[in-house]
Amino acid sequence: MKAYVYVSLKKSVLDPQGKTIQGALKKMGYKGLEDVRQGKYFEISLGDGLDRTEAEAEVGRIAREVLTNPVIEEYRFSLED
Amino acid sequence: MKAYVYVSLKKSVLDPQGKTIQGALKKMGYKGLEDVRQGKYFEISLGDGLDRTEAEAEVGRIAREVLTNPVIEEYRFSLED
Repeated sequence: MKAYVYVSLKKSVLDPQGKTIQGALKKMGYKGLEDVRQGKYFEISLGDGLDRTEAEAEVGRIAREVLTNPVIEEYRFSLED
Repeated sequence: MKAYVYVSLKKSVLDPQGKTIQGALKKMGYKGLEDVRQGKYFEISLGDGLDRTEAEAEVGRIAREVLTNPVIEEYRFSLED
């Protein structure tokens, strides 16, 4: 089973890296961009020993406790067989 | 319309950052992890001036030409209304 965890800055937190990318893309001539925000993305391969419920709990715990800084970041994740 | 672009290292490329995260998680007692790979994730807000086909072309071009290093990375993206 594979888990995909996406970590991004909270909407209320300024994202200077995203703003820089947006500015660069605009200068390069790309049209129609209103906002760019950058985040992190983790692809976790899980062993066969876990069923779906256990995997969901384990990945949730990892995302919450390790991969995300709860002060400024939020996460979401999805599981795939 | 929103576009989500995911950039990750090609499967054939070693990901030391992911290996480090995996090692740290294992030491912390998390079970059942076989592999961890890290990538980047971009959330792009597009203006209303673009229809779906144009948006797909524009985001594909941005992902291919700017956000991804084609030598070592691959990308995928999805659009959401």
